[in-house]
Amino acid sequence: MLEDAAHELFLEQGYAATTVDQIAQRAGVGRNTFFNYFGAKSDVLWADVDDALAALPPSAELRGDDDPIDAVRTALLEAADTMPAHRVPWAVSQSELLGLGAELASSGVHRLARLTEWLGSVLSSRPERPSVTERAAAHALAGAALAGAIDWVRAGRGRSALRDHLAPALEPVCTGFSAGSGCRTA
Amino acid sequence: MLEDAAHELFLEQGYAATTVDQIAQRAGVGRNTFFNYFGAKSDVLWADVDDALAALPPSAELRGDDDPIDAVRTALLEAADTMPAHRVPWAVSQSELLGLGAELASSGVHRLARLTEWLGSVLSSRPERPSVTERAAAHALAGAALAGAIDWVRAGRGRSALRDHLAPALEPVCTGFSAGSGCRTA
Repeated sequence: MLEDAAHELFLEQGYAATTVDQIAQRAGVGRNTFFNYFGAKSDVLWADVDDALAALPPSAELRGDDDPIDAVRTALLEAADTMPAHRVPWAVSQSELLGLGAELASSGVHRLARLTEWLGSVLSSRPERPSVTERAAAHALAGAALAGAIDWVRAGRGRSALRDHLAPALEPVCTGFSAGSGCRTA
Repeated sequence: MLEDAAHELFLEQGYAATTVDQIAQRAGVGRNTFFNYFGAKSDVLWADVDDALAALPPSAELRGDDDPIDAVRTALLEAADTMPAHRVPWAVSQSELLGLGAELASSGVHRLARLTEWLGSVLSSRPERPSVTERAAAHALAGAALAGAIDWVRAGRGRSALRDHLAPALEPVCTGFSAGSGCRTA
């Protein structure tokens, strides 16, 4: 109910003007309880996304896969299925109303970085020094996932599941990095 | 010489403690002159990168290309050639010394967003509403370019040209998005 309390306060008085103490008070708990669930005020905005990221399997589980690119694709689509189909992340849907902007961008980038890190940890065969191709695959897949998510958000109220928007965005990147190096070099 | 003055001050007293007025004063110019060249204090850190981004051709020039993915790859590699081979962006090389961190991340993300926007504007056949594939290509290429740039930075003092690190990072993404849709869908 911390989330509900926070959402109410953000809408009533604005995101910037709302303090963690106020959120805790409205929810009838102490400040420490808030920080048991959230690392920062902005984490409340991204709770759905953070849950989906937390649903990604530990990278060690996927690392031994014969086709790690395919393994991460499958894992991403399964994590996407944990997102409520009808509900875009609160931070995004309310961003104009709440006057987020820089705050939304920086807290969103933090999630993208976490996803990129997870992808990198699965794809790197030598974790201590990933090759440029492994690193590129991680960043490119994260970028494609972001593009799919943006497409999903923009599809509006009648949108289908996130998976349907993620799959076509990820597909060409997966193909490119699975195809090996049989292509001309610029 | 604004850049030199700013670098001196950043190193002498730290990035956070340095004001635009101090930079202008050290360079012997007025505050307004600073803002003729830079939009914000953090822009000084990224001058090399911003010059390289400014060297990208107008998107309208490339949009009619038969193979827009190949056209953007070529343009990216040519822009990379404008970066001094031996010198990584000042923001990155000095980030630990200057205690940048959040500042570096947010100002760096701004550059990545600009690159993604440029890529999107070249790749979108319908600028008013890019399809998910076009959007994914833009984000994936930007991610791969970032990965190549990181690889270049980490290669250390004996590094070769940025182009040599960018090309292998971009290659699989270009292949994937040029290959069309002849691949299985998850």
